[in-house]
Amino acid sequence: MGDDAALLRAGAGYETILTCDWFLEGTHFLKDIHPADAVGWRCLARAVSDVAAMGGAPRCFLLSLALPATHTGRWLDQFLRGLRRAARKFECVLAGGDTTRDERILINVTVVGEVPAGKAVRRSGARPGDVIFVSGRLGEAELGLRLLRRGGKWVGDPLLRKHLYPEPRLAQGRWLAERGVVTAMMDLSDGLSTDLPRLCSASGVGARIEAAKLPVVLRGREKMVRAPDRASGARKKERGGRSLDPVELALNGGDDYELLFTVSPLKLRKLRSARLPGRITPIGVITGGKDIHLVHADGREERLRSRGWDPFRAE
Amino acid sequence: MGDDAALLRAGAGYETILTCDWFLEGTHFLKDIHPADAVGWRCLARAVSDVAAMGGAPRCFLLSLALPATHTGRWLDQFLRGLRRAARKFECVLAGGDTTRDERILINVTVVGEVPAGKAVRRSGARPGDVIFVSGRLGEAELGLRLLRRGGKWVGDPLLRKHLYPEPRLAQGRWLAERGVVTAMMDLSDGLSTDLPRLCSASGVGARIEAAKLPVVLRGREKMVRAPDRASGARKKERGGRSLDPVELALNGGDDYELLFTVSPLKLRKLRSARLPGRITPIGVITGGKDIHLVHADGREERLRSRGWDPFRAE
Repeated sequence: MGDDAALLRAGAGYETILTCDWFLEGTHFLKDIHPADAVGWRCLARAVSDVAAMGGAPRCFLLSLALPATHTGRWLDQFLRGLRRAARKFECVLAGGDTTRDERILINVTVVGEVPAGKAVRRSGARPGDVIFVSGRLGEAELGLRLLRRGGKWVGDPLLRKHLYPEPRLAQGRWLAERGVVTAMMDLSDGLSTDLPRLCSASGVGARIEAAKLPVVLRGREKMVRAPDRASGARKKERGGRSLDPVELALNGGDDYELLFTVSPLKLRKLRSARLPGRITPIGVITGGKDIHLVHADGREERLRSRGWDPFRAE
Repeated sequence: MGDDAALLRAGAGYETILTCDWFLEGTHFLKDIHPADAVGWRCLARAVSDVAAMGGAPRCFLLSLALPATHTGRWLDQFLRGLRRAARKFECVLAGGDTTRDERILINVTVVGEVPAGKAVRRSGARPGDVIFVSGRLGEAELGLRLLRRGGKWVGDPLLRKHLYPEPRLAQGRWLAERGVVTAMMDLSDGLSTDLPRLCSASGVGARIEAAKLPVVLRGREKMVRAPDRASGARKKERGGRSLDPVELALNGGDDYELLFTVSPLKLRKLRSARLPGRITPIGVITGGKDIHLVHADGREERLRSRGWDPFRAE
């Protein structure tokens, strides 16, 4: 720190992973609804998740920060507090960066990770017949965002935690990569319906997934979503209805930072017999061809439409 | 490419250098006066210069790019052409990145370089009595910017080349680091009057520099600056007068990407006897204390005022 650049000594027998991610006011967070310390946490989590998706461990990061003069005091303190908490949690130390002034809050994070040589998992290895898995639950971060937009405040509510303080699946990613059971892997940052086509495109394959198998939010006890009312402070109940359809959230909700990965049928027993840290769910299979199909709960089958986050898609 | 992150294998006996730099529309370039291919060249040159300043060689870079929809066609093609030319020139390959849409052109470049273990030069090693050197000529890029602002167009004019297509001092930086003759080094990106205090602060020293020794532009033949007239296309002559004072340009002009370094008196003979690639000029000495003094040509001495580029200085 203090020099123009950081120095890093790589471990013998390891490869270095490099990734960078934008985190822009108005695109990746909203100044009015996201607490500064959640912005700090999330900008690092987003970039670290790419390292998890290759099966690696993060080592250090560079922070590029552009701030308005109005945000160099309290906001910056809280931002740095959230960033430091995330850095400790992910075992990823700040190694340098660049700061400048701007009328908007602009953030770019570069993460350096490492992975045992030859063990990194790419997006391109999925083959027809492979089973498609996801970690955790899908749509939870999007649900949290919608609650925040309706005036929800962070007071430890688990329904907001996934959105505000996501935890990339580092242990699972490493476990899967080290054991060589996965053929392809990526993280879900923009929503399954947008990210699954990316994995399939990189692998030159298609897929068929089943809506009924998706690990959704809002099942059973969580069907009633409590959203605090901004005006009165009282909590109103709201059904998980049309605007909060669990399958729609799971398919199109962004920022879950769960893992999407494929496993050869020959390795399924090895995967099942082992004690993988955390929950994983099979949601479908890789197919030949290029098409990606969604099988609804009633048996209807249709092409999956990409409705997740894609900055360059025409509206 | 295509995966979330890039993989890199470090050479044995080398340390990895990491650096990142903002390159923002309105701050680091102006959409109306900077050709797109110069923006592509300069954003990489700016980050590579930090590697040169540590005595390293660049290996690869990550490009984070946010663009308005109006700039994804011709502008982007030309931007990438300039970037590719710079990448070839600096021997630094594109390894990955992140793209998104924004209403402004936002660029962040991370460069990975390497340096033989233990040979990296930092800002913090300058000691009282060391001689202060700079490479090349100072103020040339600022002069180019002023000509561009007055309507100058790039038609191969050498007075604009330094500003539009700067070449970081990679060969000199490596040469100086490998021979161990420098005690501290950094690159001049924000102007000598802003960057010298940074080197002194990192080293806990002061400095005295002499205006008459600065390698300025506009001496001799170059005193007449030709600025194309936007309206008539004719060229008008303009003296290097008050607005183009060579010493002021050398002290406060940004974007030169020259090297600023210090050499122990014991190593001066070694430096002089060797064939350093490119021109270097001694401009003063490191002193005890904290103050930085400028000695004018007439012998007057005053504190050096930082008037280069500092985004957080109050106007």
